[in-house]
Order: sequence, then structure tokens, then C-alpha cells
Amino acid sequence: MSLLLDGIGLLVTNDTGLGEAALGVLRDAALVCEGGRVAWVGSAATAPAADRRIDAGGRCVIPGFVDSHTHLVFAGDRAEEFAARMAGRPYSAGGIANTVAATRAASDVELAGHAAKLATEALQAGTTTIEVKSGYGLTVADEERSLRVAATLTGETTFLGAHVVPPEYAGRPDDYVTLVAGEMLDACAPHAKWADVFCDRGAFDADQARTVLQAARAHGLGLRVHANQLAPGPGVRLAVDLGAASADHCTHLSDDDVQALVGSATVVTLLPGAEFSTGSAYPDARRLLDAGITVALASDCNPGSSYTTNLPFCIAVAVREMGLTPEEALWSATAGGARALRRDDIGRLSQGARADAVILDAPTYVHLAYRPGVPLVHIVLRGAETVIING
Amino acid sequence: MSLLLDGIGLLVTNDTGLGEAALGVLRDAALVCEGGRVAWVGSAATAPAADRRIDAGGRCVIPGFVDSHTHLVFAGDRAEEFAARMAGRPYSAGGIANTVAATRAASDVELAGHAAKLATEALQAGTTTIEVKSGYGLTVADEERSLRVAATLTGETTFLGAHVVPPEYAGRPDDYVTLVAGEMLDACAPHAKWADVFCDRGAFDADQARTVLQAARAHGLGLRVHANQLAPGPGVRLAVDLGAASADHCTHLSDDDVQALVGSATVVTLLPGAEFSTGSAYPDARRLLDAGITVALASDCNPGSSYTTNLPFCIAVAVREMGLTPEEALWSATAGGARALRRDDIGRLSQGARADAVILDAPTYVHLAYRPGVPLVHIVLRGAETVIING
Repeated sequence: MSLLLDGIGLLVTNDTGLGEAALGVLRDAALVCEGGRVAWVGSAATAPAADRRIDAGGRCVIPGFVDSHTHLVFAGDRAEEFAARMAGRPYSAGGIANTVAATRAASDVELAGHAAKLATEALQAGTTTIEVKSGYGLTVADEERSLRVAATLTGETTFLGAHVVPPEYAGRPDDYVTLVAGEMLDACAPHAKWADVFCDRGAFDADQARTVLQAARAHGLGLRVHANQLAPGPGVRLAVDLGAASADHCTHLSDDDVQALVGSATVVTLLPGAEFSTGSAYPDARRLLDAGITVALASDCNPGSSYTTNLPFCIAVAVREMGLTPEEALWSATAGGARALRRDDIGRLSQGARADAVILDAPTYVHLAYRPGVPLVHIVLRGAETVIING
Repeated sequence: MSLLLDGIGLLVTNDTGLGEAALGVLRDAALVCEGGRVAWVGSAATAPAADRRIDAGGRCVIPGFVDSHTHLVFAGDRAEEFAARMAGRPYSAGGIANTVAATRAASDVELAGHAAKLATEALQAGTTTIEVKSGYGLTVADEERSLRVAATLTGETTFLGAHVVPPEYAGRPDDYVTLVAGEMLDACAPHAKWADVFCDRGAFDADQARTVLQAARAHGLGLRVHANQLAPGPGVRLAVDLGAASADHCTHLSDDDVQALVGSATVVTLLPGAEFSTGSAYPDARRLLDAGITVALASDCNPGSSYTTNLPFCIAVAVREMGLTPEEALWSATAGGARALRRDDIGRLSQGARADAVILDAPTYVHLAYRPGVPLVHIVLRGAETVIING
């Protein structure tokens, strides 16, 4: 069953061979999907027929967002901690322990139900691919359970046993690292595609992070690193050294960090929701882009430091605060996210890509930043599914 | 036909006589509405019966937002200007002329249809009362037409003929002021409740603003002033001097301005969307609140400097950037907006108030800032209507 999407006023393909500029923009365009893939892209005037048809009515169509960094599997919320922080208390990694306690206490049904609700919320905001991490269980059983939940939502599952040292290992971080890189990894690796470590002040140091990441690599997992969010440190250079797919946060970068990233296999994933919700200074995306580094934008959805699933919001903040243009921000939240997941079948709308697309209720993608806070998602296509949001 | 809304986990009444703290919060509460008004508020355990019932399911219920500053009547958009500004060009009042040209060229149907679409978007985001200004016509006929359109959407209509000097009066601002305060006002006053003047650098000076506002007052209109957005100036003191209901923007305030506001009849309306979308520095709401000044939050929805209708977004930005707590921001976007419109029948949920309420898909109002960008409006009640947003 094929689908013709025509009447597209502005089509972002992210394929520079197809259209104008970095976003590969086509005007008055059409798209044909078949078997969940893009089968044809081009001018509306020359579009082939198909079994079904959706008229975009002159709207802008973009690739579905690729949210390459979320923590959707948790229980409880931390609204009180947020309110206190907004009254002056700084963010620290310590609050994670509250979510760990709530997550351990939650039933499987509660945990899976809550994660599914957030994933649906993300889909309704245009996210068609989502990465989901564990990291609020921090026991062998609870990490494995978290990854089983994550795997019901996405193929992009990430083992983050090394999120923080749990209370029962207080003062014995190396013992916890031994557990994570040993028994916990053995139990979790079958359910995970990636491994991630929070290498930062108050979390894990470079040696601990390296131990976990090397063990994960030996289990066939791809690598990601939470790096340099709270303070300058070794996280970014470790990520580059190990060939990690992404170094995430990167709020505090030295010139050496930037130099290490240039020409590396490591994407920088920026998470504007985290700085927005913690009141921290924003990283300078311009510095990274001007150095030729690939930048992804993701939500960091988690109950402590960035409780949003909304990539249009992240785009608006990135444009306001990080020095990205609307074009760059859209690229980073689609193609950039795909690079951070080392995927070439998503984040673009050209032949052979997955048919993941968002019809915006707006004439251009600039409106994602120009109309902040306004839900602009009209229809979401994800593979062979059509999810109609605003009929 | 009466309606019982029960199962309210947290009810914000904004009536300090009814519940805790400034927001008058009740827990495990219920609300009975009859004839479009609140007939009863109290503990769910003692709620009377009613003809219909909605179970809030433990959610938080707040008064509908009161958006006391919008410019919904216009045609065209300025996405290109926005994108250019985000690449470094500052905002100036001059871009308004582009919208004036598009608005004059639009048909009545286009103008009314577009304004109605934006008003619906605002309602879906929880805004149950909205003020709407003219100001993109700037001829007698086009200003009158704009106010006729506004009056189809709201009773809170504002004549803003003195928005900028239109191109055909370039170099002759006093002649334009004579038109505004004379023939234009005569034509517009029957359709307006308020008059407003943009008293700022690049717009109107104090004498010009005073001329228009005094003439408007003689026509029975209430007064509002766009003041001190782009630069320090006389706008705020003029507003206080004339007893205006609100001085809006107030981005650049001197100590004298603040002193003038203390104890005055004039509310300060802050518009965080404007600073967000123009890349300008935010005003310090803390300074105003600590001086005992009443603060309202509004969207400033307009195509040049703040193209959002979304008050939850404005609340999140105000908390992040202006020093408001989540409590203060919610109060300012509800009760504060009501004060800015000199209304005591809205912005609260206690006996006799209009039955304008929002059921949030969240357990607390803190989530409006804690979950930025996420649509949290579950159901909107407006008077006798029930508008279901997310079934």
C-alpha cells in the first residue's frame, strides 16, 4: 500500500543532493512512501500516483525528529526539587537518588506505563525515533528491568548502570563499577544497543568510566558518554579516545576538548532542556559548528534536570541561547540525532529512508523557533503508520 | 444545568480566604459550576451533587489563563525577519510596517479567520480570557475593521492606532497623532474597551502618547501603555500619571519608574515571549515583586516580536529568566492578568467567579514550568462551555 504526500509547500529532505542548502529544501514537492520507506521524492508536478494520498495543504514537511538522548524509564517526579532550585538552589547529580528510590519501588506495570506515556507524548510532538536509557535502577535486576521496558519502546536502548553510585555503595564507587562492568553488564547487554557513562563531577571519573565503557564494547555495545555537563573534565576526551558515537551535554569545554572533537567519530549532543531547567549557562554551539564538529540536539527527558519530551521547544531554546540558526537547529534535531545514533536510514527524507515525517501546521520550519511553545505538529508519519495529531 | 468537577488533587483558587498561601490552594477538592459561574468550592468529601460530573482524576486544576496583552489581528508573518534577527540583527519597531502592509491588503475573511485561528490556539493552551489590540491597520478604516474583528473574539478589545507612525505619515508624526486622537478614535471607540499607545524609542514620545490617551479617556476608554520595552523613557511614569490599568513590557526601568509604580493603580505586565524572541535581556520581575508591585504575565502574541499564544511557555520562561517562582508566575498569568484588565470575575476560582478553569495533565501547577514545551492542558472549561482538548 503506497502513500502519496503532496501539496508540500516546503520539504526538508536533509539530502543536499536533492535540494537547496544544508537542509536539501524542495518547494512545491511531493513524497511517495511504500512499505514504510520513502520510495520517491520530487516536484509535486511530476509525482507518481499511489494507493492513498494526503494533501499537506502547502504546509512544511520535515523528517521526524530523532531524539538521541532520553531517560524515559523512571517513576516519581521531582517538581518540589525543581521549585526549590528555581528559588536559588543549584542542580547536583545527587537528586538522582530520589528517582532511583521511586523507580525501584515501582511495579513493572507502573514503570512501563509511565515510559509509554512519555514516548507517546514525544511522538505527538514529532519524535519518530527515540533513544531510551536505563540508569534509575542501579541494581542488576532493576537495570535489566529498565532496559526490558525501554526495549518495548525503541530499538535504541542504552545501558546506563554508571549513572550515579547508588546509596548502598556510598564510599565504595570502585565496587559499584566492578558490579556495573561485570554482573550488571552481563544481565543488561542482551537488551541494550548502547552503553553510556556519566563521567562528571559527582558521578564517575575517567578511569571508572573507561572500565565500564571498555567492558561494554567487549559485549558488542556501542558507546556514548555523558560528558562535561557540570564541570570541565575528561569525559569528552575519553569519548573521542574510545570512538564513542556521542559525547552528550558538553556544557564545559576546553579548547583541547574542542580540538579533540574535530575530525573525530564523536558527535556532540547538546541538551538545551537541561540548561533551561537547571538555570545553568548554555554551551556555545556556534563554537562547535564553526570548528566543523557535528552537533545533535536532544531532549534529555528526565525528571531531575530536563522534564521535557518536546524537540520543538529544544530547537527554540537552542536558537535563542546556543547560537544555532533555525536551519542548523532543525538539522541537529533530525540528521544530527541520526548521526549520534550512527543511523543513515532516519533523519532524512530521500529514497530508501524510513518514511518518518512530520507535517507542520506552518509554512516553514523556521516557525519551530519563531512560534515557541505553540504545538505545530499537524500529522506524524512513522514508517507504515499514520498518526494523526490535529485532524 | 450544573457541573461537578471533582477528584481535584490540587485546586488553585487564587483566593487566599479559601486555601493555602497566595494561590489559595486546596487539596482533594471539588468545584460546582452553574450558569457559567462557580457556585461552590470546597473539599471533595462534602461536595454537593450536580447534573453532570467530570472526574479530574487527581489532577491539578487552575483558573483559566488571562492573557491581557495580544495583537491577534494581522495578516502575513515575519519568519524571515525572525531568522535574520537570530543571525544577529536586533529588533526594531520598524518591522511593524511590514505587517501593516499585509494587514491592509488582507480581506475581511482572511483577517477574521486568522485571528480566530490564533484565539482557538490560545484557548487550547488554557487561555480563557484574551485581550486583543488593533494596531496593524493605522488608517481609520483599517483600525475600525481590526477592532470589529477583535470584538468577535473577546470583550477585551484595545484601540492601538498609536502603534507606530505609518509610512504615509513619515516625518509628520504629529499629524498622525491628530488623526489617531480625532477621527480614528471617533470611529474606533465604539468597538473598543481600552486604548493603548506604544510610548518608546522609534514609536511615540510622551506628549504624543498623552494626547492620544487623554482623548481616549474622554471617549470612556480605559488606558494601557506599551512602555519602556526598547529603551528607558517616560512611558511608565505616563501610565502611572494617567492611572492606566497596565504598563506593558517594562524591560528598561529606572529606580524612579519603580518608585512611581509602588502603590499606583497600574499593573506591570511582563511579556517574556518578547525578550525570548528578540534576544533581548529580560526584565527583573523580582525587583518589582519585592517592591510590592502587581505583576501580570501575558503573551504579547504578534508576528514580529513574540509569535506565541502559549502562556505555559511564558510561565516557564518567566521562571527561568525573570526570577518569578512557579507560584508567582501562575498567579501573574491568571489573577495578575485579571488585575491588568481590572476584572474581579476572572483569574480566580471561588464563588461567583466565571467558571473558567483548566484541568492540567499534571499533579501540580509547578509542572507548567517543570515540563517546558509539553502541552499539559487536559480539559478547558470556559463559562458554560466544556472544551475537551485531550480526551
